[in-house]
Order: sequence, then structure tokens, then C-alpha cells
Amino acid sequence: MQVVVPFAAGEPKTRLAGTLSADERREFALVMLEDVLGTIRATGRSPRVLTTREIDIDAPLSIDTRPLTPAVNAVLAESVESKERDSTAIVMADLALATPDALERLFSADDDVVLAPGRGGGTNALVARHPDFRVDYHGTSYLDHVEIAAAANASVTELDSHRLATDVDEPDDLAEVLLHGDGAASDWLEDAGFSLSVTSGRVTVTR
Amino acid sequence: MQVVVPFAAGEPKTRLAGTLSADERREFALVMLEDVLGTIRATGRSPRVLTTREIDIDAPLSIDTRPLTPAVNAVLAESVESKERDSTAIVMADLALATPDALERLFSADDDVVLAPGRGGGTNALVARHPDFRVDYHGTSYLDHVEIAAAANASVTELDSHRLATDVDEPDDLAEVLLHGDGAASDWLEDAGFSLSVTSGRVTVTR
Repeated sequence: MQVVVPFAAGEPKTRLAGTLSADERREFALVMLEDVLGTIRATGRSPRVLTTREIDIDAPLSIDTRPLTPAVNAVLAESVESKERDSTAIVMADLALATPDALERLFSADDDVVLAPGRGGGTNALVARHPDFRVDYHGTSYLDHVEIAAAANASVTELDSHRLATDVDEPDDLAEVLLHGDGAASDWLEDAGFSLSVTSGRVTVTR
Repeated sequence: MQVVVPFAAGEPKTRLAGTLSADERREFALVMLEDVLGTIRATGRSPRVLTTREIDIDAPLSIDTRPLTPAVNAVLAESVESKERDSTAIVMADLALATPDALERLFSADDDVVLAPGRGGGTNALVARHPDFRVDYHGTSYLDHVEIAAAANASVTELDSHRLATDVDEPDDLAEVLLHGDGAASDWLEDAGFSLSVTSGRVTVTR
């Protein structure tokens, strides 16, 4: 199995613009990427980063300047052509809560297509073992991926994980990192002055 | 194992006040409760509802007018005294995404205390098999429950499930019900005119 982590190096994490400066967002995005790579390695696999431009990180890079969907589909098509790889996993770079256990559940689920939904309709991680499966990350990609798999007659497993459902995009997601993360991203937030704040409803963060 | 579902019958779902009328919130809360009870029964267990006052629902009721924490702790203490029950599960009434698979993972995890965190620091479902474990639902209850279990020398499992992490409290949670729910709560939202709305970020709902 090849494990590919897409990374948008340009201006990452724009929905955190009210919370972190542009420099901080770039730094935090790289810290989360490092966490994700380390977590994948802890499952015994060797990740590759699919990035829009060169970044300074200790992992093999593939550079593709196109948007996420065509870049990932090129990886899937290449995997089918090579015939060496039985399966491809695509794991988002902002899954700061991911643990080796959660990723192992993803990697070892044995349907043709394994989908870990993200909160809000996205697809945060997937495994593709069917030659006709392709991605479409626009909109409610989770529902689209279920349909694409069905159209390809590929069997589908939903991987039910809060850790993999939590992509870190919005201020409230930072609370999840502080609550459940134990990697560098959690340390980074603490060093940047963030802490949990108990309000009447869900816990959020203050700085 | 006894399975208890707490239900606040007074004015449920106040954080949906901008989205649903008071009557709708009461009705929707009962519909979610029915879904949760049906899902528990689908695992082969018989749930009991711990409610603040009598409600019209087809399940055994225990009435306790106190707040959630003392009411649940009374159930846990009674379970220890009775010596008939080896374990108690507490499942929140607004887990409209729960499936028999997700609940079975919770019920059959075999540590002294099994905790399913909710988004935002809560504890959406738990199993207690240790006589000294008690709950405290105020604030970041997930972290508090981990500490309480540690203080009691009870072993703890975190149950990592997006379906159990999603308690339906806020407007964005309704999108999760429409995306992943297949019970009466999802139908109720559709009948009430809700549909998914794709924005630039996560999917939300419109009406």
C-alpha cells in the first residue's frame, strides 16, 4: 500500500485567518503535516507528500501544482497503471488527532474503497483498491465518493472515527486538538498561547 | 448490562432555538430519543429512559428531577448496590447518528470504563464496570472522566467514533444528521424542510 498525504503549500488554513496570522498558519500546517507523517510511520508504512510546491520536510515529495482532485486522481491512475501497488491511501495533512490505531483501522479495513468522513461532508482519509475509483473533493465529497464507488461496483466501508473526522480547519477544531491531540500540533498551540475555554455549550479555545 | 438514556424533558435543545421553534425542538428531541432507543434495541439490549418528567414513549422510564450528574450517579450507585448488574451504559438521547455497529463497539470494549468523547469535550456515551466510577458532566467532562477513572484505578478505553461524537446540539450538527443519519430524525428534518447546503467550507443546512 502506498500512503499519500496531499498538502496545499500556498496559503493553507484560510478559515483560521481570524485566529492565526498567515505565517502562523503556514507553520501550524507544517507541524500538523509532520504529526500526520509520524503517525503513518508508526503504523509501519512510508508516506509520500503530494504537494503543490517544494516544502522543507523530511519525506519523499511529489509536486503537482494542480488542485487536489486532479492531483489525487493522477496518483490513483498511476497506481493502476503500475500494477505494483495493490492499494493507495490518501490521508489529509490536517488530521492532527490521528493515532496509529485510527489509521490502522482505516488501512486494514478490507473493502474496495474505505472512506473516513470528515465533519461537514468531506472525506478526510480513504483507501482505494478498485481500479475505477476516482475522487471528487468538491462539495459533499463523502456522499459523492459513496456514489462513485457504487457506480464502479466497488464495495465500500465507512470508517467511523472521530479522530479521522476532525480535520483542523476552523477555530473550534483547535479545541479538539487541545482535548485529544498528543503530538507537536497540540504543543504548538499551547506554545502559541491557546488553552481550553469552558463556555455554556461546547468547549472552545481562548488565546 | 443495563443501558440508560438520560433525557431532559423540560426545554430541550436550547442551542437550536434560532433554528427550530420550542415545539419543534421538543418534537425533534423525542424523535432522536426514539432513534437512539431503537438503535440500542438493535444491539439486543433493552434501554431504560432516565427522564426529568413523564414522557410519552414506548420504553421503561425512571423519573429523576435532578440535574444530569446526580441523576446518573444515583443510577451508578444503585447498580453497585444491587450486585446484579455487571455494568451500566449511559447513552445520550441526541446521538442521532448512532448505529448498532457503533454502539456494539462501545458496549463490547472491555475496560473498566469506556468513554465515547463528544465533539467539544463532552462525554456522549460511556460504559462503567468499576464500582468507584462516577460522572461529572459539567465542562470538559471527557477529560474529567479520564481523571476520575484514573483516580479510581479503573482502566479506560476511548471509543473513537464520529457517530457517537456527534451529539445534535447546534445547527451544523443537523448537517451531520442529513449526511449520515438514516433514522426518523433525518426524515423529520427533511419533512421540516431542511436540506444540505454546500458553502465554501463545510456543508451546512438551509431551510
